[in-house]
Amino acid sequence: MSSTLIVLNLKTYLEGTGEGAVKVAQACKEVADDSGIEIGVAPQFCDIYRVASQVDLPVYSQSLDPVGAGSFTGHAFVQSIKDAGAVGTLINHSECRLTLANIDASITTAKNAALKTIVCTNNVATSAAAAALGPDYVAVEPPELIGSGIPVSKADPGVVTGSVDAVKRINPAVQVLCGAGISKGEDLAAALELGSVGVLLASGIVKAANPKAALEDLVSKV
Amino acid sequence: MSSTLIVLNLKTYLEGTGEGAVKVAQACKEVADDSGIEIGVAPQFCDIYRVASQVDLPVYSQSLDPVGAGSFTGHAFVQSIKDAGAVGTLINHSECRLTLANIDASITTAKNAALKTIVCTNNVATSAAAAALGPDYVAVEPPELIGSGIPVSKADPGVVTGSVDAVKRINPAVQVLCGAGISKGEDLAAALELGSVGVLLASGIVKAANPKAALEDLVSKV
Amino acid sequence: MSSTLIVLNLKTYLEGTGEGAVKVAQACKEVADDSGIEIGVAPQFCDIYRVASQVDLPVYSQSLDPVGAGSFTGHAFVQSIKDAGAVGTLINHSECRLTLANIDASITTAKNAALKTIVCTNNVATSAAAAALGPDYVAVEPPELIGSGIPVSKADPGVVTGSVDAVKRINPAVQVLCGAGISKGEDLAAALELGSVGVLLASGIVKAANPKAALEDLVSKV
Amino acid sequence: MSSTLIVLNLKTYLEGTGEGAVKVAQACKEVADDSGIEIGVAPQFCDIYRVASQVDLPVYSQSLDPVGAGSFTGHAFVQSIKDAGAVGTLINHSECRLTLANIDASITTAKNAALKTIVCTNNVATSAAAAALGPDYVAVEPPELIGSGIPVSKADPGVVTGSVDAVKRINPAVQVLCGAGISKGEDLAAALELGSVGVLLASGIVKAANPKAALEDLVSKV
Repeated sequence: MSSTLIVLNLKTYLEGTGEGAVKVAQACKEVADDSGIEIGVAPQFCDIYRVASQVDLPVYSQSLDPVGAGSFTGHAFVQSIKDAGAVGTLINHSECRLTLANIDASITTAKNAALKTIVCTNNVATSAAAAALGPDYVAVEPPELIGSGIPVSKADPGVVTGSVDAVKRINPAVQVLCGAGISKGEDLAAALELGSVGVLLASGIVKAANPKAALEDLVSKV
Repeated sequence: MSSTLIVLNLKTYLEGTGEGAVKVAQACKEVADDSGIEIGVAPQFCDIYRVASQVDLPVYSQSLDPVGAGSFTGHAFVQSIKDAGAVGTLINHSECRLTLANIDASITTAKNAALKTIVCTNNVATSAAAAALGPDYVAVEPPELIGSGIPVSKADPGVVTGSVDAVKRINPAVQVLCGAGISKGEDLAAALELGSVGVLLASGIVKAANPKAALEDLVSKV
Repeated sequence: MSSTLIVLNLKTYLEGTGEGAVKVAQACKEVADDSGIEIGVAPQFCDIYRVASQVDLPVYSQSLDPVGAGSFTGHAFVQSIKDAGAVGTLINHSECRLTLANIDASITTAKNAALKTIVCTNNVATSAAAAALGPDYVAVEPPELIGSGIPVSKADPGVVTGSVDAVKRINPAVQVLCGAGISKGEDLAAALELGSVGVLLASGIVKAANPKAALEDLVSKV
Repeated sequence: MSSTLIVLNLKTYLEGTGEGAVKVAQACKEVADDSGIEIGVAPQFCDIYRVASQVDLPVYSQSLDPVGAGSFTGHAFVQSIKDAGAVGTLINHSECRLTLANIDASITTAKNAALKTIVCTNNVATSAAAAALGPDYVAVEPPELIGSGIPVSKADPGVVTGSVDAVKRINPAVQVLCGAGISKGEDLAAALELGSVGVLLASGIVKAANPKAALEDLVSKV
């Protein structure tokens, strides 16, 4: 395994829901095995268990609420995420923003349960701020490019290099991913070139006519 | 089966998380079979699939987000809830409040997927308002009594009878549950006496030393 | 004065901020005096005091938080709204949605302070629900038409008549306003024709080249 | 004037609402003039204009929403805050938390309007994160001590010194305030001793039998 990381967010795409989530995860697993590149998936809460129990690859939660055991309804409690088989979690995705205090509490909660943490940010300043909280990864994604098909590595390379520089200055132990508009091999190659260690992506693969072929293209330039 | 309904909300109690959720659901199933009274459980999102695939009883989601298929992260999408095996959902629990527009949209979304809907409310006025939206059930629970051990049927019977009257006046097809502080057979009997068709409850059973015995007591007076 | 009511929401338009709010309110006052039709304005929180202390017309708050006196920061407390000179408040505008429990609590809080209440809704079902809470007015505004320039009275007359019917059935004491895309005299006339008692509007007047002339046109068909 | 800063948050205390806000601000002004120490007040949105137009002292908003001019209802728009006479704003108070992206956007929005920015945080990690966003001040306040009467400087001096160290390491241009439980001269003296440049406080002064005397005691040890 290289140290490159690809995380595929299944969002609420029909193609990545229920049995679909298992199929996409299976494609990820095959491409990861063939390429030696680590690929994880982030299915919906309801799908974590069946993906994790049927496919041997790293499963991430799409979010985590920093609540403990107790009187909380409709929350994503760390223990249920962990018991379902997740090894990590996204935190503060642009479609699921948290307060600063809750991002911090979510990181602490996840770490105490030995879950990997990927905090999503929207620009260089918030990447720097997130790094100060000490997650495993900061994933910078300009919201206006998410789902656009225009890769951040082309449209705004400065947000990636700026985030890498800021994160390293504040906490060198934190690694940087980038996302938004990523779908092709050249996008991943460019992302690594810019100093990130991998990508967070979604529709470009999940909604591809052939997700496995799309994944094969994605890892082809590394 | 009588028309009485008991729904057990597992919240984020450790005793009702992961394998624990399956065990509590199994106890509910046994007591439902023995008593002929319908008992459902509302586990956490991550636990819906494993409960529904291992125990043959009605499983409810703790909440539902009125989002469609698409770019939504960390949301409770109706199709994933349905695919995981749920037959219904709580909406607007006091620990997971929604806007009025989203309660309405959640009911519509759930109905389109043939999921039963239980809208939680906090007083007579909001019970009446919820009835106007046409869910299957309105579950009135004064927030200050939730988890108190003091049954709503004793502490505030007027909120139950008032909700029953208001709901019937606005939409006679909607049935009323009540909750907060319910744990014993006399509480359920009193709830039915007041005109509700059942109860929504949580800690009194989930955190009991012996949940099955607690459930047996709960149904003993009906 | 007829029983017709026009409420002009100044939102955060620059033309309706600070001294601009006072000027728009002055235009409203003049047209109200000339036409005998009641016109109110809803300026931003920061502008309530200076509008209310300089112009003699009904001033509404854009929202109200159902908090009491105490440890609340950044909230719209009823007493500060009242002391600033407001006579009423919008509640649950589509750009400032509240939970059902908070809509109910906001109505109660406002009534206790003798403030008029206008609860905004998005369709017939939520209009019916809001009526059950007993505000002075329900203002139905399909969100997709807000700011569109296409009047609700033309694009979706059924949402107005449906809301009027549903509200009257549930609580005949509640009156109905409609909004979204309203700017001309024919729009107001159509709104009254459909059974509403007035309109809630914003950009069509505030951003008009000549707000006073636009208001004169608005009331010209009544 | 020394470089010490005291900011008094009037919250929604009745004693600090409407005419009360003006009176408390007047007391602050007198003590500031007598002592040479800068004292600002943060009244409710509705009270900014009348405080700023009647009392010559720095007025802060309690919060700011990072929205522009346009279709936003019930929001705290920077231009209305500025036009009302504020010179700065609190951001992310523990009673008014924002997402990380919105804290960043609020700082940028306020700076573009030449408003001072005070970002509230709850621990050392979030103080460090906030410093990375470049506000004028970070005000660290452990939520559990707010309103407790137990000064942070005694109960948890490490959160102050830790925040000062972390903030200085990340952005030496950012200054640190501390708050929670502060009311007496010895509390302010201890706060300065720990490396902060001042305090954010509320009930200890606003709800004192004699706010002016309480303020005089507050500044007596500097």
